[in-house]
Amino acid sequence: MSADETRIHRKAQPGFRWEHVDCVNYKEDGAAPFKAVTRQVLFSGAALDGELRYFEVAPGGHSTLERHAHAHAVVILRGRGRCLVGDTVYEVEERDLVSVPPMAWHQFRAGEQEPLGFLCLVNARRDRPQLPTADDIARLEAVPAIAAFLRGAETDGS
Amino acid sequence: MSADETRIHRKAQPGFRWEHVDCVNYKEDGAAPFKAVTRQVLFSGAALDGELRYFEVAPGGHSTLERHAHAHAVVILRGRGRCLVGDTVYEVEERDLVSVPPMAWHQFRAGEQEPLGFLCLVNARRDRPQLPTADDIARLEAVPAIAAFLRGAETDGS
Repeated sequence: MSADETRIHRKAQPGFRWEHVDCVNYKEDGAAPFKAVTRQVLFSGAALDGELRYFEVAPGGHSTLERHAHAHAVVILRGRGRCLVGDTVYEVEERDLVSVPPMAWHQFRAGEQEPLGFLCLVNARRDRPQLPTADDIARLEAVPAIAAFLRGAETDGS
Repeated sequence: MSADETRIHRKAQPGFRWEHVDCVNYKEDGAAPFKAVTRQVLFSGAALDGELRYFEVAPGGHSTLERHAHAHAVVILRGRGRCLVGDTVYEVEERDLVSVPPMAWHQFRAGEQEPLGFLCLVNARRDRPQLPTADDIARLEAVPAIAAFLRGAETDGS
């Protein structure tokens, strides 16, 4: 539990931090499937069937490429970047909405100059993410726009 | 269903509207327990156990004073105002977080000069709101700060 659920009101702090909410820096290592990502769990509790988290991807960073049976409902709150959902790459910016359907491969990437911060709603009860196999990666990379996205090229993917 | 769930990506429009999302203006009448409120359902679907809605209260307006067994998880997105949760009035502004516990009386009020827009996460399966009886109102109004809040006085309630 990263949020202090006993507090009715938690103030926004500068830099998209919130008081009484832990900010977790994802560790990176050589095999890291993510880069420069922080997570804050804003709401999670016994009375809620969903959890609301805030992720922030630093400039040049990206979230894990993954899929799972549960859905994501995403509201971009800060900056701009791109995301892969299924077989399409989308340009996203502040306040855009992104639906990640069950079992769709997805990844969020910040641009080189700006962070990408977003709220992500998930079910409280959910399955664990799956990482792509080499075959999955090959299938995704067969689409030129996806291959460019995955190597971090700054194209619009359209 | 107010959101087009078949769309992966929905762009933010000016004025905190979203493409392919219906914006519902709550009707007001003489007995209206709310005033100048719009609702947009941003995410709601079979794969989600929660729903994410955006409410906007126009300057001088307020949401319904109500309670229910389900919880609300609120992120202020626009402007500033005040809210009553349980027996306390809070000043709120952009990006503040508000937890409304089960069965807590609650109401959101915009200031006279600014709208108050917020995301509200609820369980997809939830009970209907209850309105206060005259006795409930009397009990709430016994607290001076709550009485001032309910009549729309611009005090901080602290």
